[in-house]
Amino acid sequence: MRTRRSLLDLDDLGTEEFEEIFARTAAFESKPPERRLAGIACVNIFFEPSTRTFTSFNLAELRLGADVVNLTPTDLSYLHKGETIEDTIVTLSAMGIGVLVVRHPEEGFPKSVAMNFDGHVINAGDGTHAHPTQALLDLYTMLEEFGSLRERVVAIVGDVLHSRVAHSLIAGLRRLGAQTVLVGPEAFVPEEYAGEGVRIERSFDAVLGSADVILLLRIQRERFVSMPISDEEYKRRYCLDEKRLARVRDATIVMHPGPYNRGTELADCVLAFAGWRYAKQVLHGISVRMAVLDLLINGS
Amino acid sequence: MRTRRSLLDLDDLGTEEFEEIFARTAAFESKPPERRLAGIACVNIFFEPSTRTFTSFNLAELRLGADVVNLTPTDLSYLHKGETIEDTIVTLSAMGIGVLVVRHPEEGFPKSVAMNFDGHVINAGDGTHAHPTQALLDLYTMLEEFGSLRERVVAIVGDVLHSRVAHSLIAGLRRLGAQTVLVGPEAFVPEEYAGEGVRIERSFDAVLGSADVILLLRIQRERFVSMPISDEEYKRRYCLDEKRLARVRDATIVMHPGPYNRGTELADCVLAFAGWRYAKQVLHGISVRMAVLDLLINGS
Amino acid sequence: MRTRRSLLDLDDLGTEEFEEIFARTAAFESKPPERRLAGIACVNIFFEPSTRTFTSFNLAELRLGADVVNLTPTDLSYLHKGETIEDTIVTLSAMGIGVLVVRHPEEGFPKSVAMNFDGHVINAGDGTHAHPTQALLDLYTMLEEFGSLRERVVAIVGDVLHSRVAHSLIAGLRRLGAQTVLVGPEAFVPEEYAGEGVRIERSFDAVLGSADVILLLRIQRERFVSMPISDEEYKRRYCLDEKRLARVRDATIVMHPGPYNRGTELADCVLAFAGWRYAKQVLHGISVRMAVLDLLINGS
Repeated sequence: MRTRRSLLDLDDLGTEEFEEIFARTAAFESKPPERRLAGIACVNIFFEPSTRTFTSFNLAELRLGADVVNLTPTDLSYLHKGETIEDTIVTLSAMGIGVLVVRHPEEGFPKSVAMNFDGHVINAGDGTHAHPTQALLDLYTMLEEFGSLRERVVAIVGDVLHSRVAHSLIAGLRRLGAQTVLVGPEAFVPEEYAGEGVRIERSFDAVLGSADVILLLRIQRERFVSMPISDEEYKRRYCLDEKRLARVRDATIVMHPGPYNRGTELADCVLAFAGWRYAKQVLHGISVRMAVLDLLINGS
Repeated sequence: MRTRRSLLDLDDLGTEEFEEIFARTAAFESKPPERRLAGIACVNIFFEPSTRTFTSFNLAELRLGADVVNLTPTDLSYLHKGETIEDTIVTLSAMGIGVLVVRHPEEGFPKSVAMNFDGHVINAGDGTHAHPTQALLDLYTMLEEFGSLRERVVAIVGDVLHSRVAHSLIAGLRRLGAQTVLVGPEAFVPEEYAGEGVRIERSFDAVLGSADVILLLRIQRERFVSMPISDEEYKRRYCLDEKRLARVRDATIVMHPGPYNRGTELADCVLAFAGWRYAKQVLHGISVRMAVLDLLINGS
Repeated sequence: MRTRRSLLDLDDLGTEEFEEIFARTAAFESKPPERRLAGIACVNIFFEPSTRTFTSFNLAELRLGADVVNLTPTDLSYLHKGETIEDTIVTLSAMGIGVLVVRHPEEGFPKSVAMNFDGHVINAGDGTHAHPTQALLDLYTMLEEFGSLRERVVAIVGDVLHSRVAHSLIAGLRRLGAQTVLVGPEAFVPEEYAGEGVRIERSFDAVLGSADVILLLRIQRERFVSMPISDEEYKRRYCLDEKRLARVRDATIVMHPGPYNRGTELADCVLAFAGWRYAKQVLHGISVRMAVLDLLINGS
């Protein structure tokens, strides 16, 4: 019997399930998995362009032996024929589809999908709200480095306000006992973010020497109308450039959910830094998604 | 040796083949099939947007272990390079592709494709002409309910004129001995449809109490210029609303090929009606298509 | 350990590797191969529309059991989010993708991709530069006919200048010892093409009786602004029409990389000519690509 569960938000997972996902991720990375999703249909619907998340989910599903169908907005007949999205989802549900992976520019869209879908929904990013599998892969990458995140200082730098990745990650870091420092100007990091385990710092320079993890964010220009701080000032204060990189400790790791904009949030020298973990994040992304799929479909 | 056969129209199937398809459908639903299409290439070309038929064919092909390629109009280089569609089909034929599933806004397009293709062509809907696999899944759903359709009253309500589904279904119902009643205004149900086993009724109310099956149709607004009857009048006369639903017998089933437009051909209460069979239609759609693929490729 | 090798150009292959590819092609055609690419991810990125090459690569990958993902320009988030293409490729590389198949309107694009990708890149056509797998399948088709190409006369007729197929093929024919004759007006066949094993002929009629192979090219109208010779004159001088076909020897084969334009480079009668090898080219295309994939991934 299938348990109807979705991953819309990290809150949908208990802390012991974090551990279970991470354990499976490690297992899948050390040994190619069997076709644990054989006979299960996975349908990916991306209403926003995506390279890395789209490819990552596709590969995770294929490696587990699922039947994979990609629907693009131009395929979706409901947009042309007066059907509501609810009824389109009811239709996909009636097909016995196991997993629906959804990305959409609107906050809460995957949640509304899950209300009409009798399988598992995975949120692959909804507006500025959440991107739980990205947060899981980021946490996995940090855990691989440090074993535990308890009392580790994780600096998240940049446009926190418009970043669904940051929103999911902050929740995850709190769960794992990390000390999160949000770094950025008021327009990107409003005071309201401060709280249990989370403090705000306006000066990037002030955290360079103490951070165990520096996670840089892209400015999500597509999510606001005018840049609240000039590009020049942003770069001057928040770009991880050569001078700042020199002050970072050797044991510190630098991460980015991608896509990154060279010259804005980071200088080219970061890409050659020994602690740059972008490639690991991307690689772990596939296995973390396999672990999530496996947990949803096959249970604990 | 491959028999070069296509399913362009229900006429391409003998009556005993109907039974064979339905028997295979039932077998596939009770037991996951083996990879009976392993090594067979299935190429889906949809020139019109589609969610349910596209997904349904993809899943049917994948479940049978076929190699599946989807071509979209933007992929099709012939549109840009002066090649005729005939020669594009000759090319796909030369690749040894086993099955071509084609949807196109033009009547007869799949037939012209079949003339140049040395494999099996399945019509996934051509203009207002035919949509044979949809008719087969509708018939299967009715048969599952009633065992036989002989003397059963099937009311098809709405825009019959522009509905390829209705055109295929009427032919199928005649074959299975049902009494078909076409219900709608003259503009949607011209007198010429009357014939052996098919009568016309202008009043929906007149058939509510006697129909074993009520199959509602979407108004195909994309296929005509101006609505021949006002929306208000259409709803007043032909919407299956609460009042009409109350007059339907308990044993009656209500169907719709989808996508359905709430408030036009049906009220929300229909979706909660015990005899609403939309989800079954959708589910059977995959298995019926598997049965058709299997019959074409592997024979009787 | 994976050897990081790409096929950007025929020069990337040694002559003994030509033979190895052709031997594997023959083996794959005589016996369906095992899943020799199981667990290997193949990602196809086509920045130009394609029917035959796209479908051919997809089928080659699927038949070898690879995990296949197709990315279209609209999926590619980097185009929207300020990421450089280099960093997009770095990302795909970090996912452990085995093979990237790339088509792009710009010469050298696949080569720049290969600089950032830690797997195998296959050039599926870049501008007017190269299309090595097309050349390999053309050579295979000729070899199947003649055993050896040594001293065989191969006439390539038409728009050589803008044809990536011709550019790759000329290099391949030289390698296999053929006598290549380029046929066309100066605007399509500049004098600079003449060289070792390659001569130029302005009159098609002059080579009809002596050519073992006549390979016709499409005029690549999308690659230049105005037609340097009138359509009428082109047809009069270079169309393989009924009159010219009558002068071709029985043992001569006629080929075309496709898509072909009837009435321009060939008349309809060619499609019924016993020596017309287009269908064979298309069929061999899948197996040749399987052989290339297998050589790159599994080595000699």
